[in-house]
Amino acid sequence: MLITIYLIAITAEAMSGALAAGRRNMDIFGVAVIAFVTALGGGTIRDMVLGHFPIGWTQHPGYIYLVISAGLFTTIIARFMHHLKRLFLVLDALGLIAFSLIGCEVALGMGYATVVVIMAGMMTGIFGGVLRDVLCNQVPVVFRHELYASVSLAVCILYLVLRHLGMPMEVNTLVSFAAGLTFRLLAIWRGWRLPTFSYQKRWE
Amino acid sequence: MLITIYLIAITAEAMSGALAAGRRNMDIFGVAVIAFVTALGGGTIRDMVLGHFPIGWTQHPGYIYLVISAGLFTTIIARFMHHLKRLFLVLDALGLIAFSLIGCEVALGMGYATVVVIMAGMMTGIFGGVLRDVLCNQVPVVFRHELYASVSLAVCILYLVLRHLGMPMEVNTLVSFAAGLTFRLLAIWRGWRLPTFSYQKRWE
Amino acid sequence: MLITIYLIAITAEAMSGALAAGRRNMDIFGVAVIAFVTALGGGTIRDMVLGHFPIGWTQHPGYIYLVISAGLFTTIIARFMHHLKRLFLVLDALGLIAFSLIGCEVALGMGYATVVVIMAGMMTGIFGGVLRDVLCNQVPVVFRHELYASVSLAVCILYLVLRHLGMPMEVNTLVSFAAGLTFRLLAIWRGWRLPTFSYQKRWE
Repeated sequence: MLITIYLIAITAEAMSGALAAGRRNMDIFGVAVIAFVTALGGGTIRDMVLGHFPIGWTQHPGYIYLVISAGLFTTIIARFMHHLKRLFLVLDALGLIAFSLIGCEVALGMGYATVVVIMAGMMTGIFGGVLRDVLCNQVPVVFRHELYASVSLAVCILYLVLRHLGMPMEVNTLVSFAAGLTFRLLAIWRGWRLPTFSYQKRWE
Repeated sequence: MLITIYLIAITAEAMSGALAAGRRNMDIFGVAVIAFVTALGGGTIRDMVLGHFPIGWTQHPGYIYLVISAGLFTTIIARFMHHLKRLFLVLDALGLIAFSLIGCEVALGMGYATVVVIMAGMMTGIFGGVLRDVLCNQVPVVFRHELYASVSLAVCILYLVLRHLGMPMEVNTLVSFAAGLTFRLLAIWRGWRLPTFSYQKRWE
Repeated sequence: MLITIYLIAITAEAMSGALAAGRRNMDIFGVAVIAFVTALGGGTIRDMVLGHFPIGWTQHPGYIYLVISAGLFTTIIARFMHHLKRLFLVLDALGLIAFSLIGCEVALGMGYATVVVIMAGMMTGIFGGVLRDVLCNQVPVVFRHELYASVSLAVCILYLVLRHLGMPMEVNTLVSFAAGLTFRLLAIWRGWRLPTFSYQKRWE
């Protein structure tokens, strides 16, 4: 089930990346790169930081074709996509949770400390979007808006606590998805945000 | 022969990096870093993604001295360099092709799947310029203009097809250079571009 | 002693990262990420480039808590921090030197060539700030202003020369700190800068 959601998730992330590339008037090569990086960049950073080689997508060429196709297809259907806004928010939330759980599992399998496991989950969930924003020359939106990273953090912690308590992995995964999706959609609906920190003083 | 072209290529890339640093009024340390990253950053990213350690330039200190010297030398001769514009376009095209073929060979030697081999070639050819543009705080030019990445893609595919057909490596390399250089110079001369994708709608 | 200075250094770097995040009006998650990246990003890049796995901080969860706490604490005391400007410049200089020496030691332990050892020291000292600036969407300040990278370079060379001459590591470390701190503070006090390179001509 996690694999199915993962495939849906990387497709949705690739499409969101393609739209970001379109906002910068990129050509279709740029669209393909940003789609790829948004969908698979988080896992790439995680694997590079954990020393987990070979990196996931290099062993699954199908993923590469999928995300590039999704990115290019988006350039055709872009004009209709805002009608799908709500669907996309749900898919994006599912993707965030799937990425987070997968990231935790990879780090757990390598025997890292708990806090590193949580960071691996969050890196997988968030750094695709961070790379997308850096390549599109803007401050990463995840550092500024909404409860997005917080959902990833909460899901990772919940998953690890339930795992520690001995809950079977399938049940744990289901519970984590239900809780994470609820949290994310509530955060969007109610406009929850973290407090921001503004500091304008220059020392020079 | 590939080594000679590679040395010329990293020199030319380092000089183009230095000019980009000059456009941002960097100091000579910044010039040295951008020259280095433009020339050797593509191969570095490729090696980090493929898990190919130690990374190439760490085993060839001469390359480091070469690209930093080329970068710093550029600050002295910069005022004359626009007279060499045509020469530079040819050297840059040769570099793009050399980087692409070397990237393919590294990934082939590690047994990666064909699509990963092509991506390794393209990463080597293109990501030095992407890193240069990110560090200079602009949207990477390769995502926006000209047939540049497409030349790398075409060369990688041609090289792999000819290799699969059993052509000896030396002949294959020559053919790939001839075809790639022709393609690239035609693209510049005729102003060929990929279609671009513009999407200005914001969903929020 | 190096460990103590290192802990002070990552704390100071995390606080400087948090202030940079505040200048971009990030939320507290963004503050935590930028604090982490500024303090531990240089060592992360160094380890990823050298193929030195597992990466340092993944084996010391305490460092992670320390830098994130320091970053968040900064949001509370930010209004008072400009009174501590001079203290911060000294801590930052100590951190730059500590990072540089630690980076050299890691690369020396892996048997890399001397120029790569120097680059490892400089990467550790400088790339945390480079990542901070890239994520805050600005041209890295270290490429533009002051003698900062030069201090790292000088310290690395001095340390390696004294090491080659057979000076005991403890004495060498002390001498390197004394010389580096003097150099850095003189550079700030006298406003020493590297020559900059400006190049405004566009070829297109």
